[in-house]
Amino acid sequence: MSANLFGTLFRYITWGESHGPAIGCVIDGAPPLVALCEADIQFHLDRRKPGKSRFTTQRKEADEVRILSGVFDGVTTGTPISLYIENTDARSKDYENIRHKYRPGHADFTYDQKYGIRDYCGGGRSSARETASRVAAGAVARKVLENALGEDIEIRAAVIEIGGIAINRKNWDWAQVDENPFFSPDAAVVPKWEAALDAARKELSSLGAVVEVVASGFPAGLGAPLIDKLDADLAKAMMSINAVKGVEIGAGFDAARLRGEENADQIRMKDGVPHFLSNHAGGILGGISTGQEIVVRLAFKPTSSLPQPLKTIDDEGNETEIATKGRHDPCVGIRGVPVAEAMMALTLCDHWLRHKAQCVPVVLAD
Amino acid sequence: MSANLFGTLFRYITWGESHGPAIGCVIDGAPPLVALCEADIQFHLDRRKPGKSRFTTQRKEADEVRILSGVFDGVTTGTPISLYIENTDARSKDYENIRHKYRPGHADFTYDQKYGIRDYCGGGRSSARETASRVAAGAVARKVLENALGEDIEIRAAVIEIGGIAINRKNWDWAQVDENPFFSPDAAVVPKWEAALDAARKELSSLGAVVEVVASGFPAGLGAPLIDKLDADLAKAMMSINAVKGVEIGAGFDAARLRGEENADQIRMKDGVPHFLSNHAGGILGGISTGQEIVVRLAFKPTSSLPQPLKTIDDEGNETEIATKGRHDPCVGIRGVPVAEAMMALTLCDHWLRHKAQCVPVVLAD
Amino acid sequence: MSANLFGTLFRYITWGESHGPAIGCVIDGAPPLVALCEADIQFHLDRRKPGKSRFTTQRKEADEVRILSGVFDGVTTGTPISLYIENTDARSKDYENIRHKYRPGHADFTYDQKYGIRDYCGGGRSSARETASRVAAGAVARKVLENALGEDIEIRAAVIEIGGIAINRKNWDWAQVDENPFFSPDAAVVPKWEAALDAARKELSSLGAVVEVVASGFPAGLGAPLIDKLDADLAKAMMSINAVKGVEIGAGFDAARLRGEENADQIRMKDGVPHFLSNHAGGILGGISTGQEIVVRLAFKPTSSLPQPLKTIDDEGNETEIATKGRHDPCVGIRGVPVAEAMMALTLCDHWLRHKAQCVPVVLAD
Amino acid sequence: MSANLFGTLFRYITWGESHGPAIGCVIDGAPPLVALCEADIQFHLDRRKPGKSRFTTQRKEADEVRILSGVFDGVTTGTPISLYIENTDARSKDYENIRHKYRPGHADFTYDQKYGIRDYCGGGRSSARETASRVAAGAVARKVLENALGEDIEIRAAVIEIGGIAINRKNWDWAQVDENPFFSPDAAVVPKWEAALDAARKELSSLGAVVEVVASGFPAGLGAPLIDKLDADLAKAMMSINAVKGVEIGAGFDAARLRGEENADQIRMKDGVPHFLSNHAGGILGGISTGQEIVVRLAFKPTSSLPQPLKTIDDEGNETEIATKGRHDPCVGIRGVPVAEAMMALTLCDHWLRHKAQCVPVVLAD
Repeated sequence: MSANLFGTLFRYITWGESHGPAIGCVIDGAPPLVALCEADIQFHLDRRKPGKSRFTTQRKEADEVRILSGVFDGVTTGTPISLYIENTDARSKDYENIRHKYRPGHADFTYDQKYGIRDYCGGGRSSARETASRVAAGAVARKVLENALGEDIEIRAAVIEIGGIAINRKNWDWAQVDENPFFSPDAAVVPKWEAALDAARKELSSLGAVVEVVASGFPAGLGAPLIDKLDADLAKAMMSINAVKGVEIGAGFDAARLRGEENADQIRMKDGVPHFLSNHAGGILGGISTGQEIVVRLAFKPTSSLPQPLKTIDDEGNETEIATKGRHDPCVGIRGVPVAEAMMALTLCDHWLRHKAQCVPVVLAD
Repeated sequence: MSANLFGTLFRYITWGESHGPAIGCVIDGAPPLVALCEADIQFHLDRRKPGKSRFTTQRKEADEVRILSGVFDGVTTGTPISLYIENTDARSKDYENIRHKYRPGHADFTYDQKYGIRDYCGGGRSSARETASRVAAGAVARKVLENALGEDIEIRAAVIEIGGIAINRKNWDWAQVDENPFFSPDAAVVPKWEAALDAARKELSSLGAVVEVVASGFPAGLGAPLIDKLDADLAKAMMSINAVKGVEIGAGFDAARLRGEENADQIRMKDGVPHFLSNHAGGILGGISTGQEIVVRLAFKPTSSLPQPLKTIDDEGNETEIATKGRHDPCVGIRGVPVAEAMMALTLCDHWLRHKAQCVPVVLAD
Repeated sequence: MSANLFGTLFRYITWGESHGPAIGCVIDGAPPLVALCEADIQFHLDRRKPGKSRFTTQRKEADEVRILSGVFDGVTTGTPISLYIENTDARSKDYENIRHKYRPGHADFTYDQKYGIRDYCGGGRSSARETASRVAAGAVARKVLENALGEDIEIRAAVIEIGGIAINRKNWDWAQVDENPFFSPDAAVVPKWEAALDAARKELSSLGAVVEVVASGFPAGLGAPLIDKLDADLAKAMMSINAVKGVEIGAGFDAARLRGEENADQIRMKDGVPHFLSNHAGGILGGISTGQEIVVRLAFKPTSSLPQPLKTIDDEGNETEIATKGRHDPCVGIRGVPVAEAMMALTLCDHWLRHKAQCVPVVLAD
Repeated sequence: MSANLFGTLFRYITWGESHGPAIGCVIDGAPPLVALCEADIQFHLDRRKPGKSRFTTQRKEADEVRILSGVFDGVTTGTPISLYIENTDARSKDYENIRHKYRPGHADFTYDQKYGIRDYCGGGRSSARETASRVAAGAVARKVLENALGEDIEIRAAVIEIGGIAINRKNWDWAQVDENPFFSPDAAVVPKWEAALDAARKELSSLGAVVEVVASGFPAGLGAPLIDKLDADLAKAMMSINAVKGVEIGAGFDAARLRGEENADQIRMKDGVPHFLSNHAGGILGGISTGQEIVVRLAFKPTSSLPQPLKTIDDEGNETEIATKGRHDPCVGIRGVPVAEAMMALTLCDHWLRHKAQCVPVVLAD
C-alpha cells in the first residue's frame, strides 16, 4: 500500500526530491550471496546520466551511487540494500519564478491539490530525477536475475520513434543503441531525429517518443494471474515512469485490428522445444510468460517544461502565463530507455522470486 | 503479494473456475453504513451477462449474485463482503478435445508451464468467466464512491472500435450505449459492426476492439505517486483484464506525436475554479487526478478460440492442429465494457480511501 | 493492509458472521500439485467442532466444509482455494435481548464505536465461530508443509492450564491430548479440571486457560527479520485469536527472570549436527528458526458471556445490567487448541514459502 | 511482505548494520503539513542513546539524525521521509574472535543457516543498533498522532521488573521515569536494581527485564479485526524488538487465572461518557480500542553476549567455547523503553490512518 514501494518479494522503496540533499532507495528481499558492487550499479546510472548530449538536460550530476547496507565481503547478505545518490547540481534559484504558478502538463497543480503543499524546486518529488533510484534498483535486480537464471538473459530498450518519426524496424541493430545520443537501434534515423529535435528546441518546443523494451532468455511461467499478471505488473511499472501515457504488450493496440487467426501465435516444435511462429502476444499469455521475448512499448509525452509562454493560473487562482527556464530535456523519452529497462528488470526479478516460491520444486538437502 | 488480490485499502480477492460449482469474491475494507443489496450488484452483472445477442457467447448463465456476509439490515457493516455466483451452464464435455492440446493465443500452454497442471474445462481459472466477479466487486465500489462523493459521479465505458472500424466521435451519445448490442456510443457505426462481425463469424474468425472508459465528477487529488500513481494503477487494473494488450491515458500513444505546447493542457479560471483548456492528460498529472474527466482506453485482442484449425502442439510435444468448439464471444472486447467500468470503479474507490487516509483533514467530534 | 487477510505468500482471507448463511475463506498462494480433499480439512474442523462435551458450547454445527475452487483431479492447481462452511444452527432470536446492550468483555461496544453498526446476532463478525475458517485454512497449510518438508513435521497443541490449575509437565503425553475433552496432555489433571469447570458453570462463571503449541521437524532458517521475524508473526497470529491476551515464545516471561548464562541455549554437536543443550529460545533466535522445536504459549481469558448479571450500558448511554443467555463455552481456551495449531501451520507455511523464494538455491532444469 | 517493512498505511522500512557506514529508515505515508524537524526526533534518540550510565553499553554513538527528504519549509510534504544516522563508533576489530563462532542466545547461528553468510561485526543486521531507526520513526509517528488527535495523547513506557525484582505499583510515578538510569516509575526500587545489576556484571552475567507501555488519550475504534486487530499488531510490533520473548495486553497471562466476572470490565456512565470499572482488557476488546488506556507488557531476556565462557560450536561444526568481549548492555531491557514506546506510536499511527480511511465520515468541501 505504500505509495513509493514497488514489488512484492523483491521490493524497492524510493525517496528523495530533485533539490534535496540526496535521493535514494532501499531494496528489501534480495537473495543473499549475489556478487554486487557499486560499479555494477554505476554502469547503468551513467547511461541515464543527464548532460551527455545537447538533446538532454544540461544539469550536471555525477550520480555517484553509494551502497550503505546489505552487502558484506562483496556479496549481498539478504538484508536491506540502501542506495544513496547525492544531489550535487541543484539550483533552486531557477525555480523562484514558478513558486506560485502551475506549469501546464506538470504535477505542480495536482501536488498542491492533493497535499496542500508542494516543493517547487525542480519539481520536488515529481521530478524525473527520481528515476535515477529506479535505474540503481534495476541494476541490482539484473544481478539477482543473472545469478539465478544465468548470464544469457538480456533486458534491453531502445527509442523507436521521436516526434512521430519512427525507425525502420528492418534496420534494427542492438549494437547501435549505445552509439548515438538517442538510444536508437536504427542508425539511419539518427540524422532525422537530430534535425527534428534541433528544430523543436529552436521553436521553444519539445517532442514525444516511443520506447520499446525487450527481455529475452527468460523462462516460461513468470506472472501471477489473475491480478498480478506479468503484463499487468509491467503495465503498472511502465506507466509509473514520469511522462508515460501509454503501454502496450506485443502487438498492443494493433492487436485490436488483427483477425483472430492472424493474432493467435501458432505453435510448432523446433529443436525439441515449443516454438511459436509469431509473437503478437509479446511473450505473455494469460498473464504468464511463454518463454518468448517479452516485448513492451511505452509512449512518452513531450516535455511539459517549455521556454515558451503558456496560459496558466497561480496558487491564488489568478490567470497568468508561464515560460519555464531551468534545464530540461527537450525529449524526456530518450533518457527513459535505461529507466524502462530498470522497470522491466525489477518486475521480472519480483516475479521470478514469486514463481520460485510457489511453483519451482525444491529438493531439500538431507 | 496475493496473486488474486486487487487494491490496497478497498480490496477484493477473486476465486473460482469456469466450470467449477461457483465463482465469487471477497471484498475487504468497504466502509460501514453504505446501503447495499443484491439488486445493486445484479444490475451490472446483467449488463455483462452472456447470451444477450448473437455477438456474444451463447453460454446461458443466470449470473445471480448472493451476498453471504458483510451486510446487515441493508447496509454494509465494515466487515468482509462475500459475493457468490453459481455456475449453472458449465458443459465440461465440450472441452474433452482440448484436454491435451494448447489453444494458440490462450493461457493453456502457460498455465501448464507454470503450475504443471491445468483445469482444461472452459479455460478453468483463465476463463473470462472470472470477470463476473470483477463486475460484482465493481458494483460495490460504485456504491461506496457514491456514498462518499455524491450521486453525480459517473463511471461509463463504450466500445469505440471493432475490427479496425472506429466510431465517429462527433456522434458520441452516452444514451446510445445501452441501446445496441455493442455498447457503441455512435448509433451510426452499429450496422457496420454488425456486418463485420457477421462476416468474421462466417469466416470462422474473430475481431478485436478498443474500449474507452471515462470517470467524471471525481475530485482532484486521487493517486499515490511515485509508484501507486493513479494512471499506473489504472494501467495494471485494465491490463489484468483478459485479452487486453494495451492501455493508454488521455491522448495516450498520440501524445508521443504531439508537440509540447499542443499536449500541455493550459489552464484558465472558469466560474471561480481552475479550468483546463484541453484534456490530453486524461485527467491525471504526476499520477494524481486533476478533477477533469479521467479517460482510459484499452485494446482487446480478437478472441483466440476459433472454430478454424490452427497449428499447435499437445502436452507431449506432438505437433497437431486445433479448432475450438465450445461457445465463445466472436469479439471479447464487447463484454469488456462493464468489466472496464468495474476496474475503474475499484481503482478509484481504493484511491479515494487512500487519499482520505493521508490527505483529507478530519475534525474529530468532541 | 486488508483487515481480514493473513500471510504474505500463503495468504488466507476470512469472511462471514456467526448467524449469516455461511462462513468461509479464500486461500491464495498455495503451490500446485498438492493432494487435497475435503476430508483433509474436515478432520481438523471436527476437532474444533462445538458440542462435543458439556465443557463446550451446545451449539450444534455440522461444520461441513466444501472446496469451491482451486482443486482439480484431487490436487491443488495453484489458483485460489475457496472454502465454504454453512451455518446450520444459528438461533438469532437468542440475541434479541442484547440487541441494544453491550456485553462486558465483548466486542459489542467497540464494534459499535468503530463502525457505527453491529450485527448483534451471536456476536456477528466478532464471534469465535470465525475460527472454523482458520482451522480449515490451517489444514491446507499443513498439507502444503507436509508436501514440501515431509510427513515427519508435527504441529500440535495442548491445554496446559485451566482456571489457574496447571498440568504436571512430567506427565506430558501427546497421545493423551485427544483422549479427554480438554486436549490435556496430562491425564492426571483431567478430573481436577472437570471439577473446576463444573463448579464454575454452577456458579454462572467461566474460566481462563493457557495453551501450548509445538511445531517440530521444521528446518532452521524460517523467519524474515527484522520486522517479519518468525516470533513476531507468530505473536500476531496467536494474538489475533479471540480471547487471547498474552503470547510467549520458549521461556517467555520467565526468561526475564533468568540470568544470561542460564537462558542462553548452549550448543554442542550430536550425530554430526548442531545440538542445543536447552530450548529457552523456543526454537527461534533473531527471529529465525533454529531447527529445534518451536514453542509458543498463549493465554485465553475466561469467556465473557456469562449467565450472571453484570453492570453495563445500552447504546443510548443508559446504565443497565446484562446476563447472557445463548450457548457459550465455559472455557473458550479449550477449543482454542485446534485454532492455535492452525495459526502455527499458517505462519510456518507462509514463512517456508518466503524462505524458499529468497534463500533456497534452485537448480533450473535444462 | 517486505521483511523489513512495518505498517500498512503509515509505513517504515529499516536498513543498516551495526558496523556499516550508517543506519536509517524511510517512512512512507505520513500525512502532509505536519510540523517536523530533526530536534523532534533527536529528543527520543537521546533517550535511547547508549553510554548514558554504567548500566548500558559503553559504545559512544552521537546518534544524530538527518532528515534527507519529505520535509519542506518545516512541514511534511506527504512524500517519503528518509532518516539517516551515521555509525561513528564502530569497532569491528572487537569481533574478529567471533568471526567463526556462534554466540549462544544470539542470531549468529540462524543468520548463517538462513542466508549462508553473516556480517559478524557487532551482530551486523541483528544488532540492537537497528532499534535507533525504530525510535526515529516512532518520533515521526508521534508528531502525526499529535497533529491529528491533539497534544493530550501520551505514549509512555517504564521498566517494571529487572532480574525478577518488580516495582511496587503503588509507587508508580511517571515523573520518576526519566530521573533514574532504569526508566523506573518507582524510585524505591532503584537501589535494588543497581545492586542486582552491579552484582550481575561482577559475576560476568546479565539480567532480564519487563517493560510496560501505556498509551492514553486515544479514541475508541482503532484496530482492524479479525486479523489486523490492534492487540495482534501490537504483539507483532513488540515481539519484533530484539530480545523480547513475551507480550501481553492488559491482564495478560493473569487473565487466564481470573474468573469471567472478575475479568470482564463492567461499564457505567461517568460525566456523560462510558466508563469502565476496571481495565483487564488493556484498552482493547475484539481487537479494537475501547478509549481506555492501552496497556502492553513485554518480557526481555537477559543479554546473551556474556564475558563468561559458554559452550558453542564454530561454523565448521567444531565444539568450542566463547566469551564475548565487545561493549554490551548488561540488561538490554532498559534501553527497550524508548523502543517500546516507538513501536506503540508506530502501531497506533498506522491504525489511526486505517480507521480514518474506513470509518471516519468526511464532509467534502464544496
